[in-house]
Amino acid sequence: MPPAVLLLSGGLDSTTMLAYALHHGFDVHAMTFRYGQRHAAEIEVARRVAAHYGVKDLVVVDIDLRAFGGSALTADIAVPRDRPVEEMRSGIPITYVPARNTIFLSFALAWADVLGATDIFIGVNALDYSGYPDCRPEYIAAYERMANLATRGGVEGTAPVRIRTPLLDRTKGEIVELGRSLGVDYSMTLSCYDPGAAGEACGHCDACTLRLKGFADAGASDPAAYAHPPSDARR
Amino acid sequence: MPPAVLLLSGGLDSTTMLAYALHHGFDVHAMTFRYGQRHAAEIEVARRVAAHYGVKDLVVVDIDLRAFGGSALTADIAVPRDRPVEEMRSGIPITYVPARNTIFLSFALAWADVLGATDIFIGVNALDYSGYPDCRPEYIAAYERMANLATRGGVEGTAPVRIRTPLLDRTKGEIVELGRSLGVDYSMTLSCYDPGAAGEACGHCDACTLRLKGFADAGASDPAAYAHPPSDARR
Repeated sequence: MPPAVLLLSGGLDSTTMLAYALHHGFDVHAMTFRYGQRHAAEIEVARRVAAHYGVKDLVVVDIDLRAFGGSALTADIAVPRDRPVEEMRSGIPITYVPARNTIFLSFALAWADVLGATDIFIGVNALDYSGYPDCRPEYIAAYERMANLATRGGVEGTAPVRIRTPLLDRTKGEIVELGRSLGVDYSMTLSCYDPGAAGEACGHCDACTLRLKGFADAGASDPAAYAHPPSDARR
Repeated sequence: MPPAVLLLSGGLDSTTMLAYALHHGFDVHAMTFRYGQRHAAEIEVARRVAAHYGVKDLVVVDIDLRAFGGSALTADIAVPRDRPVEEMRSGIPITYVPARNTIFLSFALAWADVLGATDIFIGVNALDYSGYPDCRPEYIAAYERMANLATRGGVEGTAPVRIRTPLLDRTKGEIVELGRSLGVDYSMTLSCYDPGAAGEACGHCDACTLRLKGFADAGASDPAAYAHPPSDARR
């Protein structure tokens, strides 16, 4: 089985991607980050998801992005609530964490170089997303090109690094459908930016709004726990 | 003065680059890393250099690259000694830390995005260097292109990110000459991969060999402290 590094947060997207990568025969080495995020509960969720799928290796990388601030996810700035999806597509929101995916991918690249892995999975999505610059296909393509110049494997011409983004062109509804077809149990996942003390989702941040739209579009209901269930109109 | 983020290790290259950036009127925000390197003494050297130059901001980022291993700088692997410079140019040595510059630049990019800085200085050198893939001009160009797709500034079309590499095409001798013309006191710098307990350089690792070649080529002598002074032939 070819080794691969997979960025796992334990949310809807990365858990679906994990099921997808395992289904396609990859030997997954999962990586998650404690980066000063207000939703650090996702680290335990990532552990639970990795254990559920029998992933041998889960590295939790400690980095302190609070040193920079500048995001509602890492500073004392309120997380926006109940934004329409159309609004998310226009402009970069306050939940954007500067260069976060670039930092995440760079640690994944380092680990891949050591493992001799050529595949790095990241669950970015360019359709139903929050307008983050580092989720777009042109960014991923540029990252891959850079990665192939940065590392031992790329230079020695063994095998090129591939940044795999199986969710990039899927809607949230299609991601839910993919996960359901692979038997993903979404009750164990957490997508929320601002979860409660017991790990329940808020139901109102961008991540919850997009997730609930995904389940609605797939004609399914979300089995995850919500602190304040959203209105029927939004489900 | 335009703000800039500058990667500072306190070695010959980054200290020369700091003097250069200040001479060119940049408001320098310096960043250094505690990454599990055996030569962690360089962090105190970076602090000393930053203080000497009156740099207001020095962020020390804590990351643990030992979690991956794979390098003589972060694992229990001996640092090679007394390699000829020609040998350094062929192949990637064991002191290569996987994706290290990619990780360093990614943190610098995050900080630059928050500061609204468009200039990131990194003291890479593609002539007298140790054969690291992430020191080559094509790597830097690809990183810059990626960075302009990754972040707020790049996307909102304000000002493009520039990865500034003033040392890229200079020999070590030319770097020493540049620094001396800018009045750099090299006695406070440390380049060694394997320094002694008192912070003295070993005189035999690749970094010491290249540094000493630089001073020799510039017709100068290195004022730094060495544990085992290299032979006259190598000075």
